[in-house]
Amino acid sequence: MPPGSAERRTESAQWTESVIQRTLGEIEGIGGDRLRGGYSRHVFTSSELELREWFRAEAAARDLDVEQDRNGNLWAWWTGPAMAGQGAVVTGSHLDSVPGGGAFDGPLGVVSALCAVDRLRAGGFRPARPVAVVVFAEEEGGRFGLPCLGSRLMTGAVDPARALRLRDADGYTFAEAAEHRGVPPRFIGPDPERLARIGTFVELHVEQGRRLVDLDEPVAVASTIDPHGRWRLSFTGVGDHAGTAVLDDRRDPMVPAARAVLAARAAARAARADDARATVGRVTAYPGGTNVVPSRVDVWLDARAAAEPAARAVATEVEAAARSAAEEEGCEVEVREESWSETTRFDPALRAGMRSVLGDVPVLATGAGHDAGVLAAHVPAGMLYVRNPTGISHAPDEHAEPADCADGVVALARVIAEQAACGEGGG
Amino acid sequence: MPPGSAERRTESAQWTESVIQRTLGEIEGIGGDRLRGGYSRHVFTSSELELREWFRAEAAARDLDVEQDRNGNLWAWWTGPAMAGQGAVVTGSHLDSVPGGGAFDGPLGVVSALCAVDRLRAGGFRPARPVAVVVFAEEEGGRFGLPCLGSRLMTGAVDPARALRLRDADGYTFAEAAEHRGVPPRFIGPDPERLARIGTFVELHVEQGRRLVDLDEPVAVASTIDPHGRWRLSFTGVGDHAGTAVLDDRRDPMVPAARAVLAARAAARAARADDARATVGRVTAYPGGTNVVPSRVDVWLDARAAAEPAARAVATEVEAAARSAAEEEGCEVEVREESWSETTRFDPALRAGMRSVLGDVPVLATGAGHDAGVLAAHVPAGMLYVRNPTGISHAPDEHAEPADCADGVVALARVIAEQAACGEGGG
Repeated sequence: MPPGSAERRTESAQWTESVIQRTLGEIEGIGGDRLRGGYSRHVFTSSELELREWFRAEAAARDLDVEQDRNGNLWAWWTGPAMAGQGAVVTGSHLDSVPGGGAFDGPLGVVSALCAVDRLRAGGFRPARPVAVVVFAEEEGGRFGLPCLGSRLMTGAVDPARALRLRDADGYTFAEAAEHRGVPPRFIGPDPERLARIGTFVELHVEQGRRLVDLDEPVAVASTIDPHGRWRLSFTGVGDHAGTAVLDDRRDPMVPAARAVLAARAAARAARADDARATVGRVTAYPGGTNVVPSRVDVWLDARAAAEPAARAVATEVEAAARSAAEEEGCEVEVREESWSETTRFDPALRAGMRSVLGDVPVLATGAGHDAGVLAAHVPAGMLYVRNPTGISHAPDEHAEPADCADGVVALARVIAEQAACGEGGG
Repeated sequence: MPPGSAERRTESAQWTESVIQRTLGEIEGIGGDRLRGGYSRHVFTSSELELREWFRAEAAARDLDVEQDRNGNLWAWWTGPAMAGQGAVVTGSHLDSVPGGGAFDGPLGVVSALCAVDRLRAGGFRPARPVAVVVFAEEEGGRFGLPCLGSRLMTGAVDPARALRLRDADGYTFAEAAEHRGVPPRFIGPDPERLARIGTFVELHVEQGRRLVDLDEPVAVASTIDPHGRWRLSFTGVGDHAGTAVLDDRRDPMVPAARAVLAARAAARAARADDARATVGRVTAYPGGTNVVPSRVDVWLDARAAAEPAARAVATEVEAAARSAAEEEGCEVEVREESWSETTRFDPALRAGMRSVLGDVPVLATGAGHDAGVLAAHVPAGMLYVRNPTGISHAPDEHAEPADCADGVVALARVIAEQAACGEGGG
């Protein structure tokens, strides 16, 4: 393995293609969003729990030992749970989605990891290091607002007290949701012992962009992740009846909120040379009635750029505009940084190792955050991207062709084989 | 009844005050909104059903016959269900709320109606006409967006096919919600036979404004309701990943949505001489993720003015601004009128009758819509307002003092007594 003849290679690729199609097909009915289209699979909701059950069953069918860690991440071990220092080769991604997201962002990495194990076993490969498939919790921050929550908690990148206080759109805290689903809040937090077991982390992910389409290539290796921050701007005014509140008396937080949206676009445009992007994808008005002057409007700003100062500058400009617009309306605004990730540089030695087994595949930077980016600060981490013909992600049009998915599995299996072939201290 | 001496009047007022306080107290624990504060009691949700059960029990305790009509409105008859042409005297309001609303908008009218029946009975009054207490469904439009849905359906002011297709924030249709709660969709629609039973409709409501505070009076009679419309502006663009979608490629509907919010304020300011008010109290971004360029943003516009042309002109201006902003961003916008109510003039003869029994109480116009306004197009209808010390409504600070509530009940009982004292054809 890999098989010697072109004919057998084709057969093996077809087998992989059929395995990954079947496995992706098993979860296509879970968590569909009838309102938004696509999928809404948020951490600790019934659809996400159904995906977790599916994962446990898939792992059990492969004789992998499954455990849930203190932060709600799932680990399926090929060789039994590893000890610290054994340099486990870990691969995987996440099963949660943004609201109304696509079928591939997250699940493709998990399904490909399981299929890579199948492929390695079918080829008779015996790992010299422990190998695990991981499912990280709340990667999208789709429910509690903080992306990569599971990996951030494990690595200590977020204060557990702060994480436990995060609230979803219905007012439930992360602590309440975790408790409700059998993840005791008192144990949530850094997990250095678990982190110390990981020798290498490789995440496969659908591409979020059209670079591989332009290059006419199915698979790429990641180089960096752009710096990225999320801020919540909470505008507060005075709630009242839309029909009876006199215009001059109003302190309507919707007005400065709208100005902040326009300021975000203007700030990103001004910093276009630095590839700045600013997005307001989420706005919540409280109480949210058509005939009600809102008492509070929350606006979430997502800002990224090729370099850290430019991403920070966008946020600073939006904050200044928000403060001045709030003051003009007699409102107040509180600005909270919900997350900040500096530029992530994936491990150069691992990247070189990946390219040595995969040949001259493209190397891509990305603007999207990933658990692999969080882990990269602690262990050698890398990523593989699989071509997305639409380039669209976080939306129902996100796609990957079965043949490309199979190429992704083949590539991932080769990388795992290369990394897990030598025992402790090797690779 | 009313009692002859000042001392007995005081006793009777104190009794009424204690009855209304106790009755309001019975429902204060139902439908609290832990996220927004105040109450969220939306039609056919568990909290609203609990209020319906409470109403049925209160009516039963008073030996009133309760029936639910084909549109989900509840009727409690003092004298057994009336026949058409008997000129029933009907009073009541609604139990549903805006999201995070106050305790009085709606429930005060229902509770006061029940207490007025108590007071009339305690005084030995025997109505010559049928008397009923009604609870209209979905007055606020807090779930399905169309205010006064129950009374509009009954009077034929809304096409039932359109009403059945209305969707809530979770994507459920009004038809589905009604079916689920035992209100068969196939019967929903105009109810002329029921409408023909009503001789007079009087709704008591907490004031939504500070006029009675300024006048130092506890109770007023309504003259008119300002014209009022609701429009939904749906901006559609292309959903994508906030980190990877290039700025120049974006067709982000949030940008023209923000411009529409600012256009609403500007249009209302420009028509200030006509007492124009424009509000955007509700915005929904789809899919609504922080790290997602939205594919669609819905903005609801509420516009009112002292006269119809000014209210229409505000909406027209906002629509024009929305179209131009959408085009600039490469987005589309669909503008739908969700409701339009012309100026409502309450019945002058009924108003004169009310003032003749209540003395020289103030007469107020309002900017707020009510079921009484919908009924006013078909039957003699009138309203009583009870002082609100904060002036605020549709928010937790909405309030009415127990003594003022008791004055409201006394006034309502007098009006009912006056209207129901003469048999068919009288009054």
